[in-house]
Amino acid sequence: MSVTHSLSYRVTFGDCDPAGIVFYPNIYGWFDRCFHDWLAGFGGHAAICKDLGAVGAGLMSANADFRRPMRPNDDIRLAMTIRDWGRKTLTLDYEVTVGETVTATGTEVRGLFKPGEKGIVAGEMSALRERVGLA
Amino acid sequence: MSVTHSLSYRVTFGDCDPAGIVFYPNIYGWFDRCFHDWLAGFGGHAAICKDLGAVGAGLMSANADFRRPMRPNDDIRLAMTIRDWGRKTLTLDYEVTVGETVTATGTEVRGLFKPGEKGIVAGEMSALRERVGLA
Amino acid sequence: MSVTHSLSYRVTFGDCDPAGIVFYPNIYGWFDRCFHDWLAGFGGHAAICKDLGAVGAGLMSANADFRRPMRPNDDIRLAMTIRDWGRKTLTLDYEVTVGETVTATGTEVRGLFKPGEKGIVAGEMSALRERVGLA
Amino acid sequence: MSVTHSLSYRVTFGDCDPAGIVFYPNIYGWFDRCFHDWLAGFGGHAAICKDLGAVGAGLMSANADFRRPMRPNDDIRLAMTIRDWGRKTLTLDYEVTVGETVTATGTEVRGLFKPGEKGIVAGEMSALRERVGLA
Repeated sequence: MSVTHSLSYRVTFGDCDPAGIVFYPNIYGWFDRCFHDWLAGFGGHAAICKDLGAVGAGLMSANADFRRPMRPNDDIRLAMTIRDWGRKTLTLDYEVTVGETVTATGTEVRGLFKPGEKGIVAGEMSALRERVGLA
Repeated sequence: MSVTHSLSYRVTFGDCDPAGIVFYPNIYGWFDRCFHDWLAGFGGHAAICKDLGAVGAGLMSANADFRRPMRPNDDIRLAMTIRDWGRKTLTLDYEVTVGETVTATGTEVRGLFKPGEKGIVAGEMSALRERVGLA
Repeated sequence: MSVTHSLSYRVTFGDCDPAGIVFYPNIYGWFDRCFHDWLAGFGGHAAICKDLGAVGAGLMSANADFRRPMRPNDDIRLAMTIRDWGRKTLTLDYEVTVGETVTATGTEVRGLFKPGEKGIVAGEMSALRERVGLA
Repeated sequence: MSVTHSLSYRVTFGDCDPAGIVFYPNIYGWFDRCFHDWLAGFGGHAAICKDLGAVGAGLMSANADFRRPMRPNDDIRLAMTIRDWGRKTLTLDYEVTVGETVTATGTEVRGLFKPGEKGIVAGEMSALRERVGLA
């Protein structure tokens, strides 16, 4: 079963830089927005983390390919697909489209961070998987 | 005649700070988003500025009152009302609501900035007023 | 005695918008940066809030005047001055300069937010004043 | 010869998210800040692009590994190293450190974007290489 989540977003002036196109870190911000919008359907990140004794479902790594520039007032579609549940990682693929055109793609690898004896450690991802009804 | 424009927006995790509430500069970013979303109905800021020989319909001053904290996944409503067209200024009022609750209000005073002999100067606002069909 | 705090900052490309100048919400972000940099000298916002049983020294209102546009690589100076300690408010004035030129000024009114029976309430500001050695 | 550029930056409250750590897209923003700070030594991005008939030295792809969380008031060091000049790409490696600890690493692949008949195209990177005195 492929789990996906998507949402619409209109690029605003303030998302863009002096070249007139989207400032690229904001595209990662949209990946993160899509992930949290998905979690909202299960109570949201804060409630989920409280349930699981975690401080966050945060990033271990991320990458993106920027295929076409996006500009103010572009109506974009953000789509997230769960690629893989690892023992201590969750891998998510993202695609950004404007109409039929793919403008950016990317991947996030997230961990379920918990307080440990020597600072924050990555916990078992199965806890999150169960919490969102996918285990 | 009262000119208003509004849009919906879902607060995301990344809009918020370590206190768990919206980082306040982002609320001004939503005012700006609402203004540009309104201009999008007339071709957008870039096209309008090109038509008018301007570099931007930018800020001279702004203020806001923060009445209630907003949090991730709050579904907010942004509403803009034109308060006044001055000779060289446009004054806009904003209201942010979550359901029936007003969470923030504010005001922007914008100028129509044009290239001058000694740098950027504020041009006649009537040009923008005509361009958006309100003169 | 006038309490002031200042810091230097170089405007970066990503702070600026398609008009090539600083996106105005970021200027409020610099006010906030200056305030937190001042608190860092007393252990930082998180430690202070923990000591005082507060969730944040957050905003009740803010305003700014934007006098000159700022651009990428401008070396700015941010200066904060404490204007007034009220019973439940702290009023702070800010000035942004590039060389001898004042580019923006503004004011923040902050409260010391604490958990109350019906949500967050503004606590006595004297607690913060004492904590930073000014009472 | 290894070309590197580095700068210091203090993490601010507004860079961080409800988990109390840096919101990850901002780390890419710091990569971009370091790149533009390097270009500032050659007149800055705007002047260089004007000279080269380009609209921007923008992103084709980027990735990062997040090794340790960063928090408000962490004093970080950003270091950029040029890894490779391709025919139409420039590959840059980044490292973020707090004291002796590496907190994040990453890579940007940039193109020199120019106006083409059918939109923006990637131009010869040798033009930028010469402009910064490395050819």
